[in-house]
Amino acid sequence: MRTRPLKVALLGCGVVGSEVARIMTTHAADLAARIGAPVELAGVAVRRPDKVREGIDPALVTTDATALVKRGDLDIVVEVIGGIEPARTLITTAFEHGASVVSANKALLAQDGAALHAAAEEHGKDLYYEASVAGAIPLIRPLRESLAGDKVNRVLGIVNGTTNFILDKMDSTGAGYQEALDEATALGYAEADPTADVEGFDAAAKAAILAGIAFHTRVRLDDVYREGMTEVTAADFASAKEMGCTIKLLAICERAGDGASVTARVHPAMIPLSHPLASVRGAYNAVFVESDAAGQLMFYGPGAGGAPTASAVLGDLVAVGRNLVGGTTGPGESAYAALPVSSMGEVVTRYHISLDVADKPGVLAQVATVFAEHGVSIDTVRQQGKDGEASLVVVTHRASDAALSGVVEALRKLDTVRGVASIMRVEGE
Amino acid sequence: MRTRPLKVALLGCGVVGSEVARIMTTHAADLAARIGAPVELAGVAVRRPDKVREGIDPALVTTDATALVKRGDLDIVVEVIGGIEPARTLITTAFEHGASVVSANKALLAQDGAALHAAAEEHGKDLYYEASVAGAIPLIRPLRESLAGDKVNRVLGIVNGTTNFILDKMDSTGAGYQEALDEATALGYAEADPTADVEGFDAAAKAAILAGIAFHTRVRLDDVYREGMTEVTAADFASAKEMGCTIKLLAICERAGDGASVTARVHPAMIPLSHPLASVRGAYNAVFVESDAAGQLMFYGPGAGGAPTASAVLGDLVAVGRNLVGGTTGPGESAYAALPVSSMGEVVTRYHISLDVADKPGVLAQVATVFAEHGVSIDTVRQQGKDGEASLVVVTHRASDAALSGVVEALRKLDTVRGVASIMRVEGE
Repeated sequence: MRTRPLKVALLGCGVVGSEVARIMTTHAADLAARIGAPVELAGVAVRRPDKVREGIDPALVTTDATALVKRGDLDIVVEVIGGIEPARTLITTAFEHGASVVSANKALLAQDGAALHAAAEEHGKDLYYEASVAGAIPLIRPLRESLAGDKVNRVLGIVNGTTNFILDKMDSTGAGYQEALDEATALGYAEADPTADVEGFDAAAKAAILAGIAFHTRVRLDDVYREGMTEVTAADFASAKEMGCTIKLLAICERAGDGASVTARVHPAMIPLSHPLASVRGAYNAVFVESDAAGQLMFYGPGAGGAPTASAVLGDLVAVGRNLVGGTTGPGESAYAALPVSSMGEVVTRYHISLDVADKPGVLAQVATVFAEHGVSIDTVRQQGKDGEASLVVVTHRASDAALSGVVEALRKLDTVRGVASIMRVEGE
Repeated sequence: MRTRPLKVALLGCGVVGSEVARIMTTHAADLAARIGAPVELAGVAVRRPDKVREGIDPALVTTDATALVKRGDLDIVVEVIGGIEPARTLITTAFEHGASVVSANKALLAQDGAALHAAAEEHGKDLYYEASVAGAIPLIRPLRESLAGDKVNRVLGIVNGTTNFILDKMDSTGAGYQEALDEATALGYAEADPTADVEGFDAAAKAAILAGIAFHTRVRLDDVYREGMTEVTAADFASAKEMGCTIKLLAICERAGDGASVTARVHPAMIPLSHPLASVRGAYNAVFVESDAAGQLMFYGPGAGGAPTASAVLGDLVAVGRNLVGGTTGPGESAYAALPVSSMGEVVTRYHISLDVADKPGVLAQVATVFAEHGVSIDTVRQQGKDGEASLVVVTHRASDAALSGVVEALRKLDTVRGVASIMRVEGE
């Protein structure tokens, strides 16, 4: 056991940071035994210095995060501020002044992961960020290390607890979106401004990180196609049930075009009830991984919250600490495959389309002709008539998103099609 | 990229070994990019040298495994022979002659893990064995690294695919044990001699490995309480259904006695249908982990088979290869906690007991008195009478296994109790 402690600075002391500080104190002996050296909290940068922080020596607290990371005696900087700036500058400054970094910052990693990895490598430091995706669930390390000898073909994940809570509530109670969101807000699962969650921004950042690691390439946030789940209706859930499906907001990262490119997208989708992701309830997260040799794997657990996220941060802290004690660094960025990211139009999947149509002979023939003209093959059609109006539910075989968009555009031009009530992708088959 | 290749010897070339060799060839460029050095298959030790092995240069094949591991130029030895000897001697010889080792050998790790870890450390080599537990599912690395900053309290796993296939079949079709076993054998899920699986030996070895890693202590195969699943009946499944449960063969590792000791056990148990492990179907494996900070996590995937096991072996191969390129070793054994292993009598859980009793007044009072005298509190009792005979189903609150054994012994002595039809532990609540 090394006797000189590893000095750790904490940037941010909110829900996650305070839990990290707490566990560093209460589990100090365990952490020391596992790392091979004691860890010492050397400074805590906060915005509000006057707030009482139980168990943290007030002498360690500072509002000057920049001065803290420039001290030069830090071994590890833990960044749990979130957002792009000042987090980005603080992390690169930490590398420049000799510290390795553990971060929980999905937005920053998704936007600037390559630059941060390059900075870490330039200074011979570690950059770990298990907590940035799916909270406590070990995902980045399994993908980056356990599956390093395998070829991952697809990652399909529920990576946002807020939206899963809302969709699960809609599924189990028949509630509409607004009603379910209100309950999520009341219970603290949704923030006052839920945009980042319900519009899929949070999930898209995680999709970018997962795709990059899974396929050993670079995928930026801008590369990820994103559709929120605010327009999912109770009627969509009823349609899903008829199909033996439920609806989840999925982050989907796939190899495309014979493996020569990749795609990453976030949108609501129907998945069969028999799929392991279908039974992921409440605010839980789960990520399903398909690879050549391992086959189908799933990782499940709490995707957010102070303690779960702190668990992931501390796992990284131990890993980085061990590396420091051993005089080494962990695996850096693996982006050697350098695969292009294809656009959403090239994604191939199945579709469930609900149309409001005129209830008269020949409509189905017209609609079917449109699908055929665009090369989209129909799996099933169900027709229901009422009072001169009818609805037509079409489920397709696999087709490209571009072809499906062409179909929808053409359908809207038909006189007999009153409206396209909903279009939902069908995944997980 | 280092140009001198890492030399890898393969001990065993059966279902797993041949798949490892195949992927080393087909994915050579990927492996080289991920490790930072090419890998070269330098020798393959087999028992039957005449068998045709597609894709393997016959010049590499030898029957003299000992000479192979003594060559002195090997970087990594992959042991996929299984069993205790000659695997144990070959692994220690490999360390002595300068190679790190990747093993899939659960029996050996469970029996002699401490000695093998010591030998690896003595020679400054790596010993990795992700494939020894639950095939392709990343488990050892997440427990050993991702959760290294957390405190794991319980590991609850379905770690044997053969028995899960049989129990799932019994559950879904109402088949008896023998019928379900016959189907498992016919489909290749059970071996001709299924003893190691159905009597729980295989699961017990995995429980020993998981408990040791989860609790940072040493747990040997002999420390694991073991009950097979050959006596589970269709009637037990009917009882489980009435409780809203199913039956799984579980490997359970827990902290006991306020965390001052640990227990490890394998036995069939009822678990609620709402528990994530209840929906693990067919030959799949899944391991549920409960920890202080992360909460409840689950890892799911194929627990056996050539390709999935090869995926885990190759993940370790990449990790060990990276360590070699970086001039370091990975985390060794972490057994600093040195917790004693408590006996089965000290395990505390709930019980479901079916009794055949005389159908006359006062029986329930007699039975309830026996439970009370042994300090075992009853949760529910259900009584069913038919033709002078009756059955009594008792579900207890949490009690020690020793207390429950005392209850059962006393019940057997009652005149009014004709027999104890079944005793099943209830877990996962």
